[in-house]
Amino acid sequence: MSQKPILVAGQWRPAKNSGGAFSAVNPATKTPLFDSFPVSGLDDVELACRAAEEAARALRACPRDSIARFLDDYATGIEAQADSLVDIAAQETGLAPSPRLRSVELPRTTNQLRQGAAAVRDRSWCQATIDTKANLRSTYGPIGPVVVFGPNNFPFAFNSVAGGDFVAAIAAGNPVIGKANTGHPGTTLKLAEIAFEAVRSSGLPPATVQLLYRTPPEVGFRLVSHPAIGATGFTGSKNAGLQLKAAADRAGKPIYLEMSSVNPIFVLPGALEERLPAIAKELYDSCTLGAGQFCTRPGVTVVGKGARGEAFLAEVAGLFENGTPGTLLGASGMAAIGAALDELVSHGAEIVTGGRAPEAPRYCFANTLLRASGAAFLADPHALQTEAFGSVNMILLADDVAQMTEIAAALEGNLTGCIYSHTGGTDDEAYTRLAEVLRQRVGRLLNDKMPTGVAVSPAMNHGGPYPATGHPGFTAVGIPASLLRFVALRSYDNVRPHRLPAELRDENPTGKMWRLIDGAWSQRDVAG
Amino acid sequence: MSQKPILVAGQWRPAKNSGGAFSAVNPATKTPLFDSFPVSGLDDVELACRAAEEAARALRACPRDSIARFLDDYATGIEAQADSLVDIAAQETGLAPSPRLRSVELPRTTNQLRQGAAAVRDRSWCQATIDTKANLRSTYGPIGPVVVFGPNNFPFAFNSVAGGDFVAAIAAGNPVIGKANTGHPGTTLKLAEIAFEAVRSSGLPPATVQLLYRTPPEVGFRLVSHPAIGATGFTGSKNAGLQLKAAADRAGKPIYLEMSSVNPIFVLPGALEERLPAIAKELYDSCTLGAGQFCTRPGVTVVGKGARGEAFLAEVAGLFENGTPGTLLGASGMAAIGAALDELVSHGAEIVTGGRAPEAPRYCFANTLLRASGAAFLADPHALQTEAFGSVNMILLADDVAQMTEIAAALEGNLTGCIYSHTGGTDDEAYTRLAEVLRQRVGRLLNDKMPTGVAVSPAMNHGGPYPATGHPGFTAVGIPASLLRFVALRSYDNVRPHRLPAELRDENPTGKMWRLIDGAWSQRDVAG
Repeated sequence: MSQKPILVAGQWRPAKNSGGAFSAVNPATKTPLFDSFPVSGLDDVELACRAAEEAARALRACPRDSIARFLDDYATGIEAQADSLVDIAAQETGLAPSPRLRSVELPRTTNQLRQGAAAVRDRSWCQATIDTKANLRSTYGPIGPVVVFGPNNFPFAFNSVAGGDFVAAIAAGNPVIGKANTGHPGTTLKLAEIAFEAVRSSGLPPATVQLLYRTPPEVGFRLVSHPAIGATGFTGSKNAGLQLKAAADRAGKPIYLEMSSVNPIFVLPGALEERLPAIAKELYDSCTLGAGQFCTRPGVTVVGKGARGEAFLAEVAGLFENGTPGTLLGASGMAAIGAALDELVSHGAEIVTGGRAPEAPRYCFANTLLRASGAAFLADPHALQTEAFGSVNMILLADDVAQMTEIAAALEGNLTGCIYSHTGGTDDEAYTRLAEVLRQRVGRLLNDKMPTGVAVSPAMNHGGPYPATGHPGFTAVGIPASLLRFVALRSYDNVRPHRLPAELRDENPTGKMWRLIDGAWSQRDVAG
Repeated sequence: MSQKPILVAGQWRPAKNSGGAFSAVNPATKTPLFDSFPVSGLDDVELACRAAEEAARALRACPRDSIARFLDDYATGIEAQADSLVDIAAQETGLAPSPRLRSVELPRTTNQLRQGAAAVRDRSWCQATIDTKANLRSTYGPIGPVVVFGPNNFPFAFNSVAGGDFVAAIAAGNPVIGKANTGHPGTTLKLAEIAFEAVRSSGLPPATVQLLYRTPPEVGFRLVSHPAIGATGFTGSKNAGLQLKAAADRAGKPIYLEMSSVNPIFVLPGALEERLPAIAKELYDSCTLGAGQFCTRPGVTVVGKGARGEAFLAEVAGLFENGTPGTLLGASGMAAIGAALDELVSHGAEIVTGGRAPEAPRYCFANTLLRASGAAFLADPHALQTEAFGSVNMILLADDVAQMTEIAAALEGNLTGCIYSHTGGTDDEAYTRLAEVLRQRVGRLLNDKMPTGVAVSPAMNHGGPYPATGHPGFTAVGIPASLLRFVALRSYDNVRPHRLPAELRDENPTGKMWRLIDGAWSQRDVAG
């Protein structure tokens, strides 16, 4: 069985000194898939980094419009091959071909690519700033080649060579070295083929998109700390993320991580009184979407103890128990859920329903609901925030709103936090106290809505305080904000007008680009 | 001799379990100054961090106008005490009371404070972003308590409790724990007294400004990695900065470093032909300003070899030789210059003039000019980029413009880089080639101008690629851009209108604040 090629330096080529090979497994049948993919060593990394450095240079000289055309062509290419992409991705991930892959994730992916293209054409994202009095002008520009590590749970929308990080890096003018998620190498290969076609049709440097499938840890450390690399975007486990972060930090290389989150839901007393069954159903739906394998899936729900809290718990437990568990992405995820549950139970949580992997011809784990008292959580908040990446939720029964607020204060950094409250305002005083604390712990604060929908909006924050991510100032989703992870600030002091980049000349380069001129945002030319 | 108090948790108090004491030294006389300052241990750090956490919470509830008033009051207070501030600072640093301290640095400092106040009132810095369709709204908000380590070379303008980092942190809504530079603890104490008065007069939480003077290294590591801390701003040596970075990185705490730079100057052939003496004089003036102790002082100058290059070198050498060396900030800086010169000479540079510390009743080092060939530099570029923090410059004689470009490519990250070229355009082809490479190595690119003037402008970048700083996306000087180091991104998803912060409500909170509403920057209300 021959190994699939890597895409490096503008060529599909065999991996050099390959450190082995692997195949993906169909989670719906537990059977290995046919194709074999190479594990890359230092030689592949070195070649890719050098080619990326060269591509970064060439990209700086490319017309912005070529970059935009690439992103548009790529989106069109994905649509043209939607059937085969959905087919491979479904085999590699066990996710439903429809609606999930075909009607939700694929359109989201092409939409992101096109939003990226629009941002490139618009140019406003680079926040060109002009001080006419001091004759100083600044703009954000590309940071250099970006390494993207994609997660296992979104084979298209967060793919290392097609997803949000990829679009952000490319739109900011950087080439990308994608490190495929090993769960779906075939999907990633197919996407890279389409991307590479678009690279050629749009006239971008051949090494604008490169692809490796897998590296031993120390080779990955070299990749993120290589002198030619500008920055890294990573979505995945905390364990892997923190190891890569340590390597990148030592080399002074920015790395943006999206790692883990329990996405707490607080249901205030009035809301529970008003609409208990509806909230229970929303929670169930959100927890089981994609078999619970979403970064923003709620992991902890906090309600008041007593009869109504018990009724809520019973309602949710019924839904969890009766629901058919979704197919998980792989065996390791299944094992990780079991280990996380052991951790939670050994620190005082009780399993209400689920808690084990049924015998099945596919990877799955029973929908699992746990319970614990607010006091138990506060006694050991770190252990009880262990993330179980599946259809798992722990309901905390708090003494009162004061204890809910203490629970919020004991939370580590999260992507999201949500508060359900009575529509008539009877919870407003409690909301104020709780939200003040919760706001500091989360990147996105929601009202009356589960967090699993992550809109691709300029106002989205798919980020949050450590350890949800590595830096609370950045978002991984949303255009143009997500581009700002992959930029360097460039100032021009007394530089002669004809030598300035188009974005900083007196004349507005598009006639519509927003620029900060002498303190005011404007679409006009600099007054002559 | 009693020790001076630290300012912690809203009180001037003795350091607890002090690890010793130190006094500043007057560099102009080499005599210790009278006052004794404590070295702080873990107890002081713990108390300060907890108080800062509480102050951060209280600050979030303060009217924005109180923060602005604090910054304005503080500026006024500094002006009222200008005589005594200049007097203490001159004694502790050896810098000239006038014009340097009184007419340049002090007004720059009060100007920064007032620009910060204006930014707080204007609110546009927080980049409020509103997506009416998705009902998502985001804004930058305070990241949490900020630790500021001030450098030795600007006792006012970069002071840990008065300078650019301080203003940026406060204006973004964060309390500050200042770690004084140990070269000017008395100046810092005096500033903190004025700041604390302004804290009281403006009604801010008492622990908005705190001050420690010195910590052993491991206590400093605890400070930057403490759970209560949001971020750190550091200006100083690469050695100290990288140690603090390692500690902060391990804890997942952002740290912004401004460390070292050789600020290369490239003089193209036409410029040398056109205005050799003028450029030589500009270089000399820039290298000797503040005894060469500026982060942006040129350390390396690149010219073409041959008769004109030698003439330039001779001209600069004459100026260096005839100039009286300025007073250095201290004995350690003097020793560091000697060590850096040893490093440069042992790797092939030759001393043209200077090279030693004269016998003198003050700390000083002869103005020193070195030379090396372009080839010698390219043979060992790392060693030949050793920073000598004083009136020191090394002239590289390059074979041709191609070699100049190779030299630019071998540069590590720098704050600035400058190209002098013929005013008539005869150097333009060379400029294009060289600038393309140099642009990637520096935060601020200059034409025909020395880099030592760092304007406080929205378009300034006082930052640059590693190891000049820790992240190329941020600037330490310039308002509002410098505030963006000390913020977290906060998104509000479906949050009820009356619960939104003022910046994100439909009504524009000032009637003039710039907000990004549905993709367009606007000062209007959101259409109802």
